[in-house]
Amino acid sequence: MRPICFTGMGHVLPRRMLDNDELPPLDKPITEAQLQRIGVYRRGWAGEGESIPELAAAAALQALDDAGVGGADIDFLIVANWTQRRLLPDFAPRVQQLIGAPQAFAFDVATACAGFVTALGIAEGYLQNPRFRRGIIVGAETTSRVARPHSKATLVFGDAAGAWVVERGEHGHQVLAWELSTDGRYHDAMEINAEGHCVTHIDQKELQQVAVHSFRSASGAVLDRAGFTLDDVDWIVPHSGTAGIQALLLRTLGITEDRVLTNFRSIGNVSSAAIPTALHAFWSDGTIRPGDLVLSPTTGSGWYAGAALYRMGGA
Amino acid sequence: MRPICFTGMGHVLPRRMLDNDELPPLDKPITEAQLQRIGVYRRGWAGEGESIPELAAAAALQALDDAGVGGADIDFLIVANWTQRRLLPDFAPRVQQLIGAPQAFAFDVATACAGFVTALGIAEGYLQNPRFRRGIIVGAETTSRVARPHSKATLVFGDAAGAWVVERGEHGHQVLAWELSTDGRYHDAMEINAEGHCVTHIDQKELQQVAVHSFRSASGAVLDRAGFTLDDVDWIVPHSGTAGIQALLLRTLGITEDRVLTNFRSIGNVSSAAIPTALHAFWSDGTIRPGDLVLSPTTGSGWYAGAALYRMGGA
Repeated sequence: MRPICFTGMGHVLPRRMLDNDELPPLDKPITEAQLQRIGVYRRGWAGEGESIPELAAAAALQALDDAGVGGADIDFLIVANWTQRRLLPDFAPRVQQLIGAPQAFAFDVATACAGFVTALGIAEGYLQNPRFRRGIIVGAETTSRVARPHSKATLVFGDAAGAWVVERGEHGHQVLAWELSTDGRYHDAMEINAEGHCVTHIDQKELQQVAVHSFRSASGAVLDRAGFTLDDVDWIVPHSGTAGIQALLLRTLGITEDRVLTNFRSIGNVSSAAIPTALHAFWSDGTIRPGDLVLSPTTGSGWYAGAALYRMGGA
Repeated sequence: MRPICFTGMGHVLPRRMLDNDELPPLDKPITEAQLQRIGVYRRGWAGEGESIPELAAAAALQALDDAGVGGADIDFLIVANWTQRRLLPDFAPRVQQLIGAPQAFAFDVATACAGFVTALGIAEGYLQNPRFRRGIIVGAETTSRVARPHSKATLVFGDAAGAWVVERGEHGHQVLAWELSTDGRYHDAMEINAEGHCVTHIDQKELQQVAVHSFRSASGAVLDRAGFTLDDVDWIVPHSGTAGIQALLLRTLGITEDRVLTNFRSIGNVSSAAIPTALHAFWSDGTIRPGDLVLSPTTGSGWYAGAALYRMGGA
């Protein structure tokens, strides 16, 4: 396998960010304990000009700029998204147009919250092929649109997009390993109902057990594969999504909160955009530093378990 | 790059197959010339128990049987489909359950009619990774559901699924090269409207020019990459979809009809299922023989141009 790396990052949030007290009133009162388990105090709601292709393009353009390359240098473009999926066409061809990348084979994937790791895995495979030298992977979601109005989900979900420029070679942030698996027994754990709202068909306890197993198995797989243990990892940048799932992740992996970098408290559960968005934010502010080893576990309805392990390159 | 091959094939059609005179009446009369340009005289309409996951699973189970392996031997499962796409979850996890492949990372792709080649390209990348030894790729479509009732499209579209078991190595039918590109200028050439029907926003002449360019560029790319010319190719098994597009393909590539194997006349335009379905049919009946070199070009709204080149292995 030829090594791959990412050489540029970008992320965007919607113009409109809402604190909890700015949200439309909930139809059922929420207890302080519930609010703490959700743990989200601010999130973005995409507005006009902020649909999936536009958010994805904005993040991708930042990543191109960060990598010091142009759209014409891009051979493929993979947009992960499940919150505005279309039958035809995919969204990625529109993103291709918006960023000016005419050579990029452009398509969409979903896999719920695991979409960014899915895109990364496909990219790694493509980059083994001389046909592809450089690509962009994006996680772009408007999760706010699948939250039933006035439901608790409006507290949880937020909109965002995050992107990486990925290349063959070891000159950037090095991708060391990734893992994805599916447990189809839970394929219908969550679905979008006829009204377009996300509903859960699994009890909270069982969901937690599935999530625990996902975090443990996927994180273990990438660490084993790359020859590291959890002690070697400097930072966990997970898709956790809520404080409750985050607490579960900490217990499952047996780690303390000071090694986990997330921003769901201030941007909400942004699903497939979570990992690139948080990584870019904590890299840009200097928390994550060159040489740091980062583990990004994720789970997603499907049921998907995933993780990526990478070593940050020079600033 | 490690070589990859496919070792099993399968395809299914719906129980209900309709001849032209069995279709609900058209709302506008069609001329004989139009009918000849469509060139479809029979097609399948999926009924109960024949939705995307069920058609996909039936084709996949045949392919497993043909390859002589079981579901437990499968590391990944990619289902190409655009005619019943969901927001959440993907269909593939359900297919994973139906075929009993608990180890398979399972997800969906779309890319319109180019979906099977998209799945093949991802599979080739995955099989470079020691994590994946063997997978299943499926094209499964219920295009009849996106045809406006009583429109000409009801003549064109048909439902089907086709699948391959793909593996690392050279012991099966060898995949020599594949190509996919996107021309996002035509991303909105076709779309599904609010009523769920496929509509075209490009005039027929321009569409033909785009299709011509697609066939020529993608076919040229795979032949160049594998070191062959069109003269070396024994059979073209394209996704062409209608007699008009097929005629265009022949003119574009400068080939005679006797080298082209398609079954759209008797099963309709089955989109991403077309290539594996036709290949399996013409392999099973002995038309395509061991050692034959086969080129499969495709186009799809997005706008996608694709092709795959492969050498058939022993019977």
